[in-house]
Amino acid sequence: MITLTQSTPDDRLATLEARLARVEDELAIHRLLTSYGPLVDAGRAEEVADVWTEDGVYDVDGAYLDGRAQIIEMVQGSTHQGFINNGSAHINAPAHIEVDGDSAIAVCHSLLVLDRDGFKIERATAHHLQLVRVEGSWKVRRRTSRLLNGSQRARDLLAAGATGRPA
Amino acid sequence: MITLTQSTPDDRLATLEARLARVEDELAIHRLLTSYGPLVDAGRAEEVADVWTEDGVYDVDGAYLDGRAQIIEMVQGSTHQGFINNGSAHINAPAHIEVDGDSAIAVCHSLLVLDRDGFKIERATAHHLQLVRVEGSWKVRRRTSRLLNGSQRARDLLAAGATGRPA
Amino acid sequence: MITLTQSTPDDRLATLEARLARVEDELAIHRLLTSYGPLVDAGRAEEVADVWTEDGVYDVDGAYLDGRAQIIEMVQGSTHQGFINNGSAHINAPAHIEVDGDSAIAVCHSLLVLDRDGFKIERATAHHLQLVRVEGSWKVRRRTSRLLNGSQRARDLLAAGATGRPA
Repeated sequence: MITLTQSTPDDRLATLEARLARVEDELAIHRLLTSYGPLVDAGRAEEVADVWTEDGVYDVDGAYLDGRAQIIEMVQGSTHQGFINNGSAHINAPAHIEVDGDSAIAVCHSLLVLDRDGFKIERATAHHLQLVRVEGSWKVRRRTSRLLNGSQRARDLLAAGATGRPA
Repeated sequence: MITLTQSTPDDRLATLEARLARVEDELAIHRLLTSYGPLVDAGRAEEVADVWTEDGVYDVDGAYLDGRAQIIEMVQGSTHQGFINNGSAHINAPAHIEVDGDSAIAVCHSLLVLDRDGFKIERATAHHLQLVRVEGSWKVRRRTSRLLNGSQRARDLLAAGATGRPA
Repeated sequence: MITLTQSTPDDRLATLEARLARVEDELAIHRLLTSYGPLVDAGRAEEVADVWTEDGVYDVDGAYLDGRAQIIEMVQGSTHQGFINNGSAHINAPAHIEVDGDSAIAVCHSLLVLDRDGFKIERATAHHLQLVRVEGSWKVRRRTSRLLNGSQRARDLLAAGATGRPA
């Protein structure tokens, strides 16, 4: 944030361009992550899968989804369709995002709220995300998610994400 | 994000100015939308209405509020006052925002949490927002909100918002 | 956002640098605040305390924590350890942040969701935050938090934060 008085205009332009690109990356990842909840509750299976890379992984309690086809299958499956046909809100808390060049680490909590004769919290989950830039677009390479039921694994995911480390 | 080596300093300045203005717009909308929950739970009726344009619309289950006066009336009305006098938290999830010049589309979920002998989720809602820049400030022109009870309308709002389309 | 045509390249660079620094500050505060929930649910007491300044205050219902040592003690204490060993999600809604030079005001809601034979909302809370820049890093100087149970104090915190005023 310190501009040396002897910097040339070219140096200052190059510094600004690099800093602004870093800011744009963080906001692009924020836009990607905030699209997930709306898309999954809308049942838009292909757009949900497109949040991930082609070979993206969603590693969650009870399922290990490997690649977009399996993510599409999850959204179209009877469990998820039951949720959204009865009333479902995937509430994602704002993510903590740390960008490092063409990759990034993010972490957030989510609540799955279902309409079951009144809205109830079905799950509270910790999410650790590894993201990469692919052909100019940010995508999730791996989302690792564990129920916040006191397990050490869920707590490790939160700690790793909040300090910018891999899961 | 590619800077052609033959760009003049003037070109590079103009590009930076346009990109930074786009970033500032997204953050200004984020600040506007994150002010809503605190203001409405504080009961600040005029500041809540000021989130909208003069002719702004809040189209929600059971009410079609047309213009700031009707929004003020809702905040001052007995239902909302009952909520906030007993304990109320309008929790808005982080919005997905897509800016296009002087207008923007946003989408988010919210939870209305009320203190009813313990905190309970009264409503989980899908929100689609159309925003415009008015005299340099971003305002909501239309907020369309539907309960996430399995209705197709709520799901359509989420899908439209997450892909930057009108409601 | 208006660039006078007679501005020199040096003026335009200086304006861009100042505007970009303001954006970076807002995102840095957003990263700080989004680290809190994951860190506190992970039980990382020292990293939680490091969200505050050395002499930071956490003024919350039933406790007035004065300085990092007392914040560490709270995280390591039996109440908080009971929460995280059974399953705990400190869900923070996205903060409204207003930066003014080397200080800032933020406001947000939070939900404390605990696993008690199913996930239940234990508390819905209003938070007002005063932040300062210390040696180049943003820290919380004071977080004032009150249960959203209808009290005037909680509503005042929300109104003050949403309009960028001290608590």
